[in-house]
Amino acid sequence: LAVVLGTAVAFAPIPRITWEHREVGLMKFQEPGIFNYSALLMSEEEDTLYVGAREAIFALNALNVSEKRHEVYWKVSEDKKAKCAEKGKSKQTECLNYIRVLQPLSTTSLYVCGTNAFQPTCDHLNLTSFKFLGRNEDGKGRCPFDPAHSYTSAMVGGELYAGTSYNFLGSEPIISRNSSHSPLRTEYAIPWLNEPSFVFADVIQKSPDGTAGEDDRVYFFFTEVSVEYEFVFKLMIPRVARVCKGDQGGLRTLQKKWTSFLKARLICSQPDSGLVFNILQDVFVLRAPGSKEPIFYALFTPQLNNVGLSAVCAYAVAAVEAVFSRGKYMQSATVEQSHTKWVRYNGPVPTPRPGACIDSEARAANYSSSLNLPDKTLQFVKDHPLMDDSVTPVDNRPRLIKKDVNYTQIVVDRTQALDGTSYDVMFIGTDRGALHKAVILENEVHIVEETQLFPDSQPVQTLLLSSKMGRRFVYAGSNSGVVQAPLAYCGKHSSCEDCVLARDPYCAWSPPTATCITLHQSESPNRGWIQEMSGDASLCPDKSKESFRQHFFKHGGTAELKCSQKSNLAQVVWKFQNGVLKAESPKYSLVGRRNLLIFNLSEGDSGVYQCLSEERVRNKIVSQLLTKHVLEVKVVPRMPVVLWTPTAPALP
Amino acid sequence: LAVVLGTAVAFAPIPRITWEHREVGLMKFQEPGIFNYSALLMSEEEDTLYVGAREAIFALNALNVSEKRHEVYWKVSEDKKAKCAEKGKSKQTECLNYIRVLQPLSTTSLYVCGTNAFQPTCDHLNLTSFKFLGRNEDGKGRCPFDPAHSYTSAMVGGELYAGTSYNFLGSEPIISRNSSHSPLRTEYAIPWLNEPSFVFADVIQKSPDGTAGEDDRVYFFFTEVSVEYEFVFKLMIPRVARVCKGDQGGLRTLQKKWTSFLKARLICSQPDSGLVFNILQDVFVLRAPGSKEPIFYALFTPQLNNVGLSAVCAYAVAAVEAVFSRGKYMQSATVEQSHTKWVRYNGPVPTPRPGACIDSEARAANYSSSLNLPDKTLQFVKDHPLMDDSVTPVDNRPRLIKKDVNYTQIVVDRTQALDGTSYDVMFIGTDRGALHKAVILENEVHIVEETQLFPDSQPVQTLLLSSKMGRRFVYAGSNSGVVQAPLAYCGKHSSCEDCVLARDPYCAWSPPTATCITLHQSESPNRGWIQEMSGDASLCPDKSKESFRQHFFKHGGTAELKCSQKSNLAQVVWKFQNGVLKAESPKYSLVGRRNLLIFNLSEGDSGVYQCLSEERVRNKIVSQLLTKHVLEVKVVPRMPVVLWTPTAPALP
Repeated sequence: LAVVLGTAVAFAPIPRITWEHREVGLMKFQEPGIFNYSALLMSEEEDTLYVGAREAIFALNALNVSEKRHEVYWKVSEDKKAKCAEKGKSKQTECLNYIRVLQPLSTTSLYVCGTNAFQPTCDHLNLTSFKFLGRNEDGKGRCPFDPAHSYTSAMVGGELYAGTSYNFLGSEPIISRNSSHSPLRTEYAIPWLNEPSFVFADVIQKSPDGTAGEDDRVYFFFTEVSVEYEFVFKLMIPRVARVCKGDQGGLRTLQKKWTSFLKARLICSQPDSGLVFNILQDVFVLRAPGSKEPIFYALFTPQLNNVGLSAVCAYAVAAVEAVFSRGKYMQSATVEQSHTKWVRYNGPVPTPRPGACIDSEARAANYSSSLNLPDKTLQFVKDHPLMDDSVTPVDNRPRLIKKDVNYTQIVVDRTQALDGTSYDVMFIGTDRGALHKAVILENEVHIVEETQLFPDSQPVQTLLLSSKMGRRFVYAGSNSGVVQAPLAYCGKHSSCEDCVLARDPYCAWSPPTATCITLHQSESPNRGWIQEMSGDASLCPDKSKESFRQHFFKHGGTAELKCSQKSNLAQVVWKFQNGVLKAESPKYSLVGRRNLLIFNLSEGDSGVYQCLSEERVRNKIVSQLLTKHVLEVKVVPRMPVVLWTPTAPALP
Repeated sequence: LAVVLGTAVAFAPIPRITWEHREVGLMKFQEPGIFNYSALLMSEEEDTLYVGAREAIFALNALNVSEKRHEVYWKVSEDKKAKCAEKGKSKQTECLNYIRVLQPLSTTSLYVCGTNAFQPTCDHLNLTSFKFLGRNEDGKGRCPFDPAHSYTSAMVGGELYAGTSYNFLGSEPIISRNSSHSPLRTEYAIPWLNEPSFVFADVIQKSPDGTAGEDDRVYFFFTEVSVEYEFVFKLMIPRVARVCKGDQGGLRTLQKKWTSFLKARLICSQPDSGLVFNILQDVFVLRAPGSKEPIFYALFTPQLNNVGLSAVCAYAVAAVEAVFSRGKYMQSATVEQSHTKWVRYNGPVPTPRPGACIDSEARAANYSSSLNLPDKTLQFVKDHPLMDDSVTPVDNRPRLIKKDVNYTQIVVDRTQALDGTSYDVMFIGTDRGALHKAVILENEVHIVEETQLFPDSQPVQTLLLSSKMGRRFVYAGSNSGVVQAPLAYCGKHSSCEDCVLARDPYCAWSPPTATCITLHQSESPNRGWIQEMSGDASLCPDKSKESFRQHFFKHGGTAELKCSQKSNLAQVVWKFQNGVLKAESPKYSLVGRRNLLIFNLSEGDSGVYQCLSEERVRNKIVSQLLTKHVLEVKVVPRMPVVLWTPTAPALP
């Protein structure tokens, strides 16, 4: 006899509208023979989108990516390819040059690194000539050897911060700063990095109104093998790590190593439902104009029992910093000679606090640089890089949980609705080439729409959001190409009800023009526009002139009445002379779940047929007349022939 | 940029046939006003099924459960109900008498315990008079106080072995033997039982050809809070525990406590896919005639990220015993004063081996009873009841993994197919009142059929398999009643192809009678019968006399041609004059995914229409002609009327 402990719960918000690839006609870029369009970089000033693919870099018109402005190829020599193949790698797929770093170096040049047939190399790309300078810098520690290995990088003050693997096998992970005057790196030790998969890195500048003398911080996001948790098999754990821009390393201890490297668990779970999301897929930093602090939006999947489940958790930068600046540390202990266990460290913590950036307080205590930090502090951070406290998400729960999907990439836009309320609109790519646009309305996830970006269902490898007012797009890269999608398809909503029911903060109904318009933040909103994020369509103007279609059919025939409705959340209801019709009766049938078939027409079938959509919004049904048909059945005198008569009895 | 670590995998074997409740017409029993039919007990000799429900016990005809033979009610007095309600419990649901123990005591009596408004009580039921003896025994430790608490029991040699909670709050778990001469129980300590949910208990008799002097063993299956594993929140772990029938407790240490209580982890996981099934739902002991050793079939769901996932793992009794008799123990250690960690114990183990049953070897060393075991052995087992080694399943992987379902109960039947091969047929109940019948064919799960046992989609609470030759049934209890289902619905397969494609070891096609017959193990098989578990239907006789239906339709009309096909694995294909028709064209449409609609009939539509089913079996398509229609379109002279003409243009 059993007691059911595990509860199966439905996390299945359905995208309200599904746009097929052919329906949206997106701008796209695709160069024959070129694959893996995985690095995207935007220059807002130049309206240029730089794309790093396999063995090629392109400059595209950001307003129309199908327009190529420049291209440059960076191929592996046959000689190198042969050497790489000798080491047992595939000539066709692995021994090529995958662009992995594409960062702005100056207004006239980019810093580019590629795997280069397992000999990672970096170069400078001159943007005027669109030619490489031929620097041939060693890319070790900046770019992985193997295109299958994880990597991330950020350009901060002209210095490249990178998380990747340092050797051919990919067994030595590293987080490094590549700087001529102060190169730094992580210790090669399990407590620092334990088989990490790097996902994202970026800098957060000291807050302009913050404590004087604060330092910029560079954050790294990755998933690694957990040392503090154990289960039936290896557990992965998502981490955020942080280093300080002003770090100079130690003088003796931690020489040329980070003295400010600390890392902490990211929690994205819902204990009541037994949900634990512990594999990071992507991170986006939302820097909304006007808001004090950036927010980290992190995309997760579970490691355990994942048969299609994804989640988004949001973290405040202050919550991350609080763990690093005030949290407890972890320590390892040996149990019974042979087992290493990690537990909370409860002992005394040296001063200055290990792992802290040099701030004005430290400077006042005469620690002007990490080079003159006391040995005690350095030794402590070397042994205790892991925090015991966890970083918990905003509201202490996931923003979004979605079943039956594997999300791969996320970008987020904060936008203002007509009424002034701000919404964080999440654009999330799937492993099947789709883009979901999700918004939180009254604590519930509403997926406004799903767009099939790539016709071949390739995973979305990269997403990029442009921020230029008035011409905003989401760019997506996959193995086969790059597409450019608008933030909204307002114009495709043909009625006021549809425009309001979309519950899309970018869209509003304009009664004078009878169109669903895209709100641009730059324009001043018109008072007559209708937008109700609650989905309340009662403000929509009455359709004074009801249109209808008239049909004549003959007696005994079959009529098919059409009705079109895009919303996946709506149900189509047919009415005849104001009474609801029961489909799937001998008289009626629904085709494609929308169109009505009427069989064996007789005079009694003449009359008015109405197709309505019923959509549930906040437990209220919004009913909308979609089409009206007027049908007239004409009598044809019967002929003396036997009609509609099965004769031969059915044999078994 | 992300590296996808979690892989979503499809574990979605679809039941080949779905039998709706109304299609199968099962025998059922349901007494008005009586609920929670959760205790089932079979008397094969008497052909009687005893049913313990809330406040009632019934004796039903096992061959037709709708026939009630006896009934007896055991209600809670108003006085007791009031006292129970005073303690904050619900008078309508909790302060009643839920029968939780229903065990055979002798040929003429049953041992029955009920929750009895949070005052668990046991009594003897005389089977001749079907009246209680009025013993009013204290049921503490045999039956839970709260109907929501877990429980399990087994009657062994007239003594009740029970796993349940010992107090009102349910906070004190216990595994006990209720015996007049030697009552025993577990220590009340976390290392022994840590918030367990009891699922199953049974005795495994010493093997008749085994080591002389071996003892019978009683196994308990439960899920408890893990002490050895840690993750973001409390982890549950499935366990098997074992005690020896001959255990007498210790003399000083472990006085009146088990000296033979050991427990171990059950592993049911698939590391490659990140699947961990750690919540036990049910266990069944398969004792197949002729096979040496019973097998434990265990049903699991995951604790983590379970959005509808279940698995079955099978364990050999020998694998369980090996862990207890030769495995390493675990020990707890205190780390940094405040953390308790469990690790493998590598020190010396006292003799006789702690937790072992008294066997001839122990007797030879003068340990004739647990009462004279040395204190060292007893102290060791008291502190180390948990094994470090895990019990791994047969073939080291789950037998079955199924998505989008929550299984609750399992029974298994070993049956011989016509060719002599043995198959373990699993009958598994769901939380929505369905029964799945699954069999492993060439390492793949084949779900022969799904039967909706309960029309109200109530969870299957209990399953019981009768073993009497020739009259075998699966009985299922839910909150609303008891149903009796046959092991197979062979007679419902009307063609040889369908009978073979069912891949049901109970079914074979008999060409002389042209019926799909149910194989009874007692009868000697007929050589002419056709059964191919591979699904190869090529041996089926040619349908010499092809039947067809003839129809006449008039010009311009619509024809609907019917086709019936039960298999969820098959696809319906329509052919016209031997060419495959494309449905969903302006000319044709499929209704209900089976029947063909032909619009706007003309002379060219006259001819032969064939409906075929195509079913993929082992990557081969088995095609089967289901129906043949001959259609003739008659011309009706056209009348001077406008037909089929949309006139009014559509307005927006």
